[in-house]
Amino acid sequence: MSTPEARLLARVALTWLTEPGTWSVHRLVDRLGPVAALELLLDGGAPEERLRATVAARTAAGDARAVAEQAVARTARLGARIVTPEDDEWPAPVADLRRLALPGASRRVDLETAPPLCFWVRGAWPLAEALDRSVAVVGARAATAYGTHVATELGYGLADRDWTVVSGGAFGIDSAAHRGALTAGGLTVAVLACGVDRPYPMGNTALFDRIVETGLLVSEWMPGAEPLRPRFLIRNRVISAGTRGTVLVEAAARSGATQTLNRTIAVGRTAMVVPGPVTSAMSVGAHELLREQPRARLVTGVAHVLEEVGRIGYDLAPVARTPERPRDRLDDEAALVLEALPRRGALGLDVLAARAGVDVRTAMRKLSLLEELTLVVRRDDGYALAPTPARRTTGTTAGGTG
Amino acid sequence: MSTPEARLLARVALTWLTEPGTWSVHRLVDRLGPVAALELLLDGGAPEERLRATVAARTAAGDARAVAEQAVARTARLGARIVTPEDDEWPAPVADLRRLALPGASRRVDLETAPPLCFWVRGAWPLAEALDRSVAVVGARAATAYGTHVATELGYGLADRDWTVVSGGAFGIDSAAHRGALTAGGLTVAVLACGVDRPYPMGNTALFDRIVETGLLVSEWMPGAEPLRPRFLIRNRVISAGTRGTVLVEAAARSGATQTLNRTIAVGRTAMVVPGPVTSAMSVGAHELLREQPRARLVTGVAHVLEEVGRIGYDLAPVARTPERPRDRLDDEAALVLEALPRRGALGLDVLAARAGVDVRTAMRKLSLLEELTLVVRRDDGYALAPTPARRTTGTTAGGTG
Repeated sequence: MSTPEARLLARVALTWLTEPGTWSVHRLVDRLGPVAALELLLDGGAPEERLRATVAARTAAGDARAVAEQAVARTARLGARIVTPEDDEWPAPVADLRRLALPGASRRVDLETAPPLCFWVRGAWPLAEALDRSVAVVGARAATAYGTHVATELGYGLADRDWTVVSGGAFGIDSAAHRGALTAGGLTVAVLACGVDRPYPMGNTALFDRIVETGLLVSEWMPGAEPLRPRFLIRNRVISAGTRGTVLVEAAARSGATQTLNRTIAVGRTAMVVPGPVTSAMSVGAHELLREQPRARLVTGVAHVLEEVGRIGYDLAPVARTPERPRDRLDDEAALVLEALPRRGALGLDVLAARAGVDVRTAMRKLSLLEELTLVVRRDDGYALAPTPARRTTGTTAGGTG
Repeated sequence: MSTPEARLLARVALTWLTEPGTWSVHRLVDRLGPVAALELLLDGGAPEERLRATVAARTAAGDARAVAEQAVARTARLGARIVTPEDDEWPAPVADLRRLALPGASRRVDLETAPPLCFWVRGAWPLAEALDRSVAVVGARAATAYGTHVATELGYGLADRDWTVVSGGAFGIDSAAHRGALTAGGLTVAVLACGVDRPYPMGNTALFDRIVETGLLVSEWMPGAEPLRPRFLIRNRVISAGTRGTVLVEAAARSGATQTLNRTIAVGRTAMVVPGPVTSAMSVGAHELLREQPRARLVTGVAHVLEEVGRIGYDLAPVARTPERPRDRLDDEAALVLEALPRRGALGLDVLAARAGVDVRTAMRKLSLLEELTLVVRRDDGYALAPTPARRTTGTTAGGTG
């Protein structure tokens, strides 16, 4: 029986030997476990000619196990961590990629859509928890002022309602969505197509720094990996599968963003599209999708998005295993009081009791408990939610290299 | 057996006694003919209490037959005409209103949707021919610059491809659609909710004058009739049924334009919606329709509209009886040559033959024939379509008071 460390190293070596998403590798790992799968591949025993050639080319360039060891060390130095399916914070819903099949697929990026082997993660929140209530907002890099405005509003509105905003960290729509979420003081996750140490594009460095502080940078590629063109398409399947739904804000005709939405539908998540002026080239792709894809839903704002992602009976999907948080230990009345607190600002005891639907005496008792748990603070103007550090405690303790 | 004149007078009297669209009147006319139906009503023999009360109130105010005679005389003085189902130019497709049933209807305007008894028409084209290849473009009066632009482009593009542009003559989207069609030198029809002698709104008088010159003003109400509020909704069913499809360009939330589109769908025509910026209040109604009405098709321009109205197998619908036009007598090759001519400008013989897919000798022979039929003129720069008068000849000969 292999050790957790050996299995982690094997997964890292496998992601270096072959691109993420390769079905034959996924099936080998499923059958043999990562350690034996790696051994088989390194011994030239890959079941497919093409995979054997890929592995041979890679091993000619370096020792997969040594590369993996260096990658793990580099990850630790970065303050990042590697998350594998064996970890508590592994986002279980990405396993739905097992059933992803794109009709009429012929390109490698459309065919090789297997679930990830592992994730590199930078940021304090446990990955599964961050993705539990999440919506992706994606779209054109060359966004218009209209698209940027709409994406910012969506990012803000979703984060303000405690939904995680997931996107790809690109210029344009992606950046606007991340920024909107950050402005709302909410959680945002950038899923990258390169190493988490050198998030692409460079011009978004300040944005990525802010995301790391309060949210997450996530990648299937090891530190130092370059954002090669096909990797964006490979990455997109994680955005689709890792969230409850994906909203497309702006897209040119036949763009990559429409391809993300087709993955979203194929993996059983909700595909949403924001229309725009028909005079705008940047909305042509959005309108194409609405015309040609009967399962794409037209949405015009946060209310529609929440209606859609609330509708799909997500509870039937595999429940992500998340670490326990202080608020999970609350009794019903304390939870009501906590829910009644505004996201920003404070409320007096009477108003708070009324909003929570409990009597004032109960509210007072529960607020004491919530203060002890550092979830609530008493201020001159009333009771308020504690600043985020209290909510991030669980995140930092769950850190490490998986 | 009554005379055509008596039947015409009876229909006019019936439209004055009761509002157009009243089912009980339609059924009476169907069963007894207009003359006997009028007699029955004037004798107090209406089959329904409510209809009897309506007729009694009207007859207290005047003599229906005398009013009808005055209306016919006034129509002739105006240079307008009355068109009834007995006339060649009656647009047969409006009979599809027989099958119109609006789910959940409770208001009078939603319930009383029977086919028209007669139309008042101003303009030279035969009504049926004008509506044969027609698309309605409707929308908000308080249109934005965006909506006005889109409606103008649609009006222009449809007219440029020889489609008649139908709308309601209102400010905003309607006016823009009419103007676009006029700019393209095409045919446009304004279906009014008042007399054709005093088209509403007054501010559009110059536009209505231009429409009368080359297109049509149409109404179910006699000259002098006022544009009462419910009449716009009653009128809308004619716009829906008289065209092959209706395009909604801009509409506020829960607007009257969305109601037109529900009629369009209920009567079996194609309902099309142009999306807009989600930040615009004037596109809220359009997006509502696209979200809630699965049969509403998103269109972004003329190409999409033509795809939709070409798709519905309109040939299966009752064919409008149209007077024969010179071009109907053409053989296949002559028709090809005629089709190959540009809407504006001229072409040389060689280019024309190539576009038509016939040899030069054939093209020359057919062009002589087309010249004789006054469909084509030879100019210094080549062959060109004859100016509109040649095409309007059939219209003026079919004029008169029906």
